[in-house]
Amino acid sequence: MPVETIGWKNGKVRYIDQTLLPHKVRFVECADLRKLRRAIRKLEVRGAPAIGIAGALGIALAAKNSGANGSEGLIREVSRAAKYLASSRPTAVNLFWALARMECVAGKCAGKPVPRIKKLLLDEALSIIREDMRSCRRMAGYGAGLVRNGDSILTHCNAGGLATADYGTALGVLFEAKKRGKRIKVYVDETRPLLQGARLTTWELMREGIDTTLICDNMAAGLMAKGKIDRIFVGADRIASNGDAANKIGTYGLAVLAKYHNVPLYVVAPLSTFDLSLKTGADVPIEMRHPDEVRAVMGVQIAPRDVDAYNPAFDVTPSELIAGIVTECGIIRKPYKRGIGRLKAWS
Amino acid sequence: MPVETIGWKNGKVRYIDQTLLPHKVRFVECADLRKLRRAIRKLEVRGAPAIGIAGALGIALAAKNSGANGSEGLIREVSRAAKYLASSRPTAVNLFWALARMECVAGKCAGKPVPRIKKLLLDEALSIIREDMRSCRRMAGYGAGLVRNGDSILTHCNAGGLATADYGTALGVLFEAKKRGKRIKVYVDETRPLLQGARLTTWELMREGIDTTLICDNMAAGLMAKGKIDRIFVGADRIASNGDAANKIGTYGLAVLAKYHNVPLYVVAPLSTFDLSLKTGADVPIEMRHPDEVRAVMGVQIAPRDVDAYNPAFDVTPSELIAGIVTECGIIRKPYKRGIGRLKAWS
Repeated sequence: MPVETIGWKNGKVRYIDQTLLPHKVRFVECADLRKLRRAIRKLEVRGAPAIGIAGALGIALAAKNSGANGSEGLIREVSRAAKYLASSRPTAVNLFWALARMECVAGKCAGKPVPRIKKLLLDEALSIIREDMRSCRRMAGYGAGLVRNGDSILTHCNAGGLATADYGTALGVLFEAKKRGKRIKVYVDETRPLLQGARLTTWELMREGIDTTLICDNMAAGLMAKGKIDRIFVGADRIASNGDAANKIGTYGLAVLAKYHNVPLYVVAPLSTFDLSLKTGADVPIEMRHPDEVRAVMGVQIAPRDVDAYNPAFDVTPSELIAGIVTECGIIRKPYKRGIGRLKAWS
Repeated sequence: MPVETIGWKNGKVRYIDQTLLPHKVRFVECADLRKLRRAIRKLEVRGAPAIGIAGALGIALAAKNSGANGSEGLIREVSRAAKYLASSRPTAVNLFWALARMECVAGKCAGKPVPRIKKLLLDEALSIIREDMRSCRRMAGYGAGLVRNGDSILTHCNAGGLATADYGTALGVLFEAKKRGKRIKVYVDETRPLLQGARLTTWELMREGIDTTLICDNMAAGLMAKGKIDRIFVGADRIASNGDAANKIGTYGLAVLAKYHNVPLYVVAPLSTFDLSLKTGADVPIEMRHPDEVRAVMGVQIAPRDVDAYNPAFDVTPSELIAGIVTECGIIRKPYKRGIGRLKAWS
């Protein structure tokens, strides 16, 4: 059963506070746009597709809360809310994609009655959720074909149910492989600084009864050298038109190590993650986060307080290091530019 | 000023408890062999050369504490103490090297008066300390020649004063480069699971006024891709006759990344780190430590309590990935087998 990561309940945005996992499972009902933006910034809600959903629901919420008494005023408020939410995190493009969809719906509503617009916006947000659920299942189906019985698989960060509305991108592949009766073993990078692998991915995999082993990020290379990793599945936060993929910091290093050890690395991401306005990954804006996230672990200081620390949240993996990109419309292989262009044209 | 990491004071072994750094600087006076062994196991004393020194001082301590009234009894006790200390940690060969030196001295003492033997053993331990101090300075001198003005340098774990009796192996090189007026910037891998980089290396570098930036282990690759790392200096725990070097987990991955990005990686280690009985690094025994070190950070649980975790303390870097090995007798370059054979023959 997928986690109910984020949804719409009782006229509010309801999400699981991921900063408390795996120790506490707490759902938050949020009726306030500022609180929702803060939840995104603080990674209470995280994961590229889930951030997109949070953005869409945020617009529905802003509309619901609006006191505007005409369509023009409401559309202006929606636009303001979209800008406000867009400033929460810069890298995952799914957020901007979802906000653009919501603004597009609003843009067609001039002259319509206010309650009707509010309903249309909520419907659109709920559509985005339903589509994400379908996408997860379809990516899982395509990706599971890449997993062999007996495979030992490495994953980084959390590309699971907690990053989507359903059961995830990269982890969905593993869940589906297991459902199809494949015996797999999964190594999970803890993924410093915010430990999404240690906290979230292990928790999700264990809930599904998958053989799970936690490692520190710096242990992956040694496992590859011993031939203990057959393939790697990761998610993505933004994919450029040439297939370069921005994902959680550390993914690029894994991809280089995978290349050296001849281990295929697959990116699993819905088409909403592709940004065709970018030629290459060099153009992806990389979020720099507070150095305290590096200097401390879950509130415990691990270094001198005054030491400088560097904290990019993402890095970019050049497409030549990626064996395939699994989407809801199939697996894209080299040359990526052509495959990506085609799939996006269909979608 | 180097840290007084470990020494002999008031008839006891005195060491700085490294598990408390950087938050507390606490010196421990240890008059008991079991306590000393536990300190090594728990990494209160750590770093290959420092563990060797701890072993030697431990033998001096065992001799001092001995109630034997003849040379034979004392020599037997020394031998027992050596076995006991040798079982503390398996990878760093400096421990076995130092214990063998102590046993060799004891072995020549048959028939000598007990107080004389005790003195000879203490003298030998103090010699090992003095030699280590000299070695550090000489390695630093050779290594500093590899550093260019303006270099940005990456280091992993702690190969500093806290790992030796003086100012370190890899860090000694950086201290000496600075002393020679070279402007350097140092990136420090935090080095999970036990965070020797975050806790110890940053502390040592900042004490010496070096421009220091802490990173998570998984950020090194991205820095290399941006051309922000000019060279890498690390220590070693055991080097085989072909130059393969066991060092803190994560070193191997760095070496592969360094190769890919054309960044030279240097190992800095005294000749006591070489184990010519081993043909290759595949023969180095790798210590597996408790999974809780991975599941928690400084006592804080970061993952489900019952998740499996993998925790090798070291990995092995094949010599073809090493640009040079800096020793107290000069820099060894490829082909390593020849160079290592020669230097060890001289030493």
